[in-house]
Amino acid sequence: MDLKELEDIEHSQEEREDFSGEKVKPIIVFYPKNEEDVVRIVKFAKQNKIPVIAWGSGTSLTGAVSCNGNCILIDFSKMNKILEINEIDWYVRVQPGIKLIDLFEELERKGFMLPPDPASFFLCSVGGAVAESSGGMKGVRYGSFREWVLALRVVLPSGEVVKVGEPLRKNRAGYDLVHLFVGSEGTLGIITEIWLRIIPIPKRKMVTIAALLKDFESAADVIIGLRKNRILPELSEYVDADVVRALNKHLNAGLKETEGGMLLISIEEDMVNDVLKVLEGKTVDVMIAEGEEANKLYSLRAQAAIAVKAESKNVFYAEDIVVPISKLPEAIRKLKEIAAKYNTKFYVISHIGDGNLHPNIIIEDKEARERAFEEIARMAIEMGGSVSGEHGIGTQKAKLMAEQIIKHNGRTVLDLMYEIKKLIDPDNIMNPGKYVELAYKYYKEFSSQTIEIK
Amino acid sequence: MDLKELEDIEHSQEEREDFSGEKVKPIIVFYPKNEEDVVRIVKFAKQNKIPVIAWGSGTSLTGAVSCNGNCILIDFSKMNKILEINEIDWYVRVQPGIKLIDLFEELERKGFMLPPDPASFFLCSVGGAVAESSGGMKGVRYGSFREWVLALRVVLPSGEVVKVGEPLRKNRAGYDLVHLFVGSEGTLGIITEIWLRIIPIPKRKMVTIAALLKDFESAADVIIGLRKNRILPELSEYVDADVVRALNKHLNAGLKETEGGMLLISIEEDMVNDVLKVLEGKTVDVMIAEGEEANKLYSLRAQAAIAVKAESKNVFYAEDIVVPISKLPEAIRKLKEIAAKYNTKFYVISHIGDGNLHPNIIIEDKEARERAFEEIARMAIEMGGSVSGEHGIGTQKAKLMAEQIIKHNGRTVLDLMYEIKKLIDPDNIMNPGKYVELAYKYYKEFSSQTIEIK
Repeated sequence: MDLKELEDIEHSQEEREDFSGEKVKPIIVFYPKNEEDVVRIVKFAKQNKIPVIAWGSGTSLTGAVSCNGNCILIDFSKMNKILEINEIDWYVRVQPGIKLIDLFEELERKGFMLPPDPASFFLCSVGGAVAESSGGMKGVRYGSFREWVLALRVVLPSGEVVKVGEPLRKNRAGYDLVHLFVGSEGTLGIITEIWLRIIPIPKRKMVTIAALLKDFESAADVIIGLRKNRILPELSEYVDADVVRALNKHLNAGLKETEGGMLLISIEEDMVNDVLKVLEGKTVDVMIAEGEEANKLYSLRAQAAIAVKAESKNVFYAEDIVVPISKLPEAIRKLKEIAAKYNTKFYVISHIGDGNLHPNIIIEDKEARERAFEEIARMAIEMGGSVSGEHGIGTQKAKLMAEQIIKHNGRTVLDLMYEIKKLIDPDNIMNPGKYVELAYKYYKEFSSQTIEIK
Repeated sequence: MDLKELEDIEHSQEEREDFSGEKVKPIIVFYPKNEEDVVRIVKFAKQNKIPVIAWGSGTSLTGAVSCNGNCILIDFSKMNKILEINEIDWYVRVQPGIKLIDLFEELERKGFMLPPDPASFFLCSVGGAVAESSGGMKGVRYGSFREWVLALRVVLPSGEVVKVGEPLRKNRAGYDLVHLFVGSEGTLGIITEIWLRIIPIPKRKMVTIAALLKDFESAADVIIGLRKNRILPELSEYVDADVVRALNKHLNAGLKETEGGMLLISIEEDMVNDVLKVLEGKTVDVMIAEGEEANKLYSLRAQAAIAVKAESKNVFYAEDIVVPISKLPEAIRKLKEIAAKYNTKFYVISHIGDGNLHPNIIIEDKEARERAFEEIARMAIEMGGSVSGEHGIGTQKAKLMAEQIIKHNGRTVLDLMYEIKKLIDPDNIMNPGKYVELAYKYYKEFSSQTIEIK
């Protein structure tokens, strides 16, 4: 292997770490300036059968960009341009390295929004958010990234460049390959250009209701109450009492501490009374905020993970389960039970409005931490939920993903995913050893059992 | 081949025709009662290598269910149940044979809606709408079926049953296979159960603006004006002057006949003035309708194709192109030019708000009709649009689809689609000879050219 032929592409030799603490030890880091550079790197990797990993900002929480000494890392920090904001066709075309916050700000200046807003938006890259199909606080109304990607340019493992999809909302020309690449975690190709649908910022006045709850159970009850009353908030976020305490302690949040923690609901002004009716009898205190005051509450919500991290001295796993809304009361009860069993608390942060819960497991003993982690994910599987809503799979959740797919979808689905991976990446150079490939390996464990799809 | 082993499944021997006039001549028609019956039929087809075609209501406009003497037709009219309306998790689970109108009515009774509303909704099956990823009038705000399908049970060509996706809005467990099957036109497997996302019927009062336009060009100008003013209607539909005349003639519509035809815009009451401002100077007359009166206008819009069919004496092709909104003025100008060249009129019906135009080509001479059809689709390709927004590909558009993909996406994308088809359906028994497979055959025509992806 002679890296010399690529020496004109900016590069460095360094080690990194992702947000989950996984090590990233590449042979070399390249900083391509354009798609052509990426093609050259991928062709080189193909010839030499070296794994290639795309790096946006390294905010993966599941080890999706980890590398144990044998990989080329493609750092997209130099491919960070907005190429076009189309104010008539309502899409934006960007390079993958742009920070989500920079895109948000530019769109806002023009009166547009791209709704999915992962808590890491101030840091994460758009390429990473697409590769992980990230979610966020507004997911309850607007869904996650997969609902906003129109088209992608991709360098395939062969080095060929293709575009999947069209920058059109309607397009029936062939199988939908866009959604195959969205959420593929860098295992099918390297994204070099992204078309995202955008919408005008809604003109209606929004109000934020901050409900300090009487008890933990009330959070689930309120969400079910909203559903029964056919109320769809723009945002409904929950942090439990321990998270509120951590926010006060580490970030001087000045929030009232109650048994039940805090529920934030954002909704059109003329719907506030409907929400208050649902909240009746479940709160200790209710604040109604607008503008800057509301933004401050969201910013606290967005920083909740930082407060938990401070509390944990860095030994924690962030869970990312989804449960059906109808199972929220049961899920919340069981989380309490599991926490008690492990003699700990779970610091639950959640996009509760779409059933996406992030219990944060702070247990010093690694083995016990892993056991609790798996127990929570299995609870979600049992309830008809998912082991991941928005953080993805990477290395951390591959086994649990295999369990979910085999129980809910049928093992053939995992076979099929694996066959698609082999079809597109026959030399297995795209972010190998993770996600579908790794799940497929675990799947052998189950291969002798007969399991009925539920 | 001995059909006896399936004789306990209800069956008949008959010929049919789809809505595009294509013949459907199966060996036998089966009417399965449940998934098990479907599995038996598919396994039989696999053993005997006989093509299998799923039939919902036969409303295909592109020959997607045609069969020339050698196929088994699976008619889903006996699998037409609503299995569950989940009022907390906000999904509905149905069998594929249910008529879309029956589902709409049941959902409405419970305060819910499933937004995509193809003009054939009073007749088409939900299975067909999912297999074609159908659109409709509300697509401008809510998108087409692919944005509403959460999960599917599918009988694969092997006879295995799998579930793809989860009945959850957020789920990151593996590659997104749901979207591979949505819009796959029966070429990858037979859908036996469908989970669709539903939302509460919006509570805000909607108003319909019917604008009788001064001229043809105004339709495009108004849509661009709405976009510039960041106005997103729930519905924005256009029928040209010839369609208005046909509606008056064949359906006694009693609409005012102007040079520019009629634009229907549905929007929240408090946005009406914003829309009227955009309409200024472009109309001869404007009506504002609500409730029953508004419904009457929609019903006329939905019946526009029937009026055109009456006008045409059944020799017409319904186009289904999509152009970028920003190219609407150019597209509309060019349509006029093409019509003039063929000495005809195009009876344009359109979901103009999302750039999806249905020029109806009424030319008696078959060859000229086909030439005009292709010319219009190529115009869309040249403009960065699509040859199909919602009618799909079937047999009718396969060649044009190949052209679009090769020009916009790269020939590798067509290879990849074809490889996926072979991977999932190695014996090619699922609705063969159409769509991706047929497009792939045409693609040989282009294989010697070098084409840059645009």
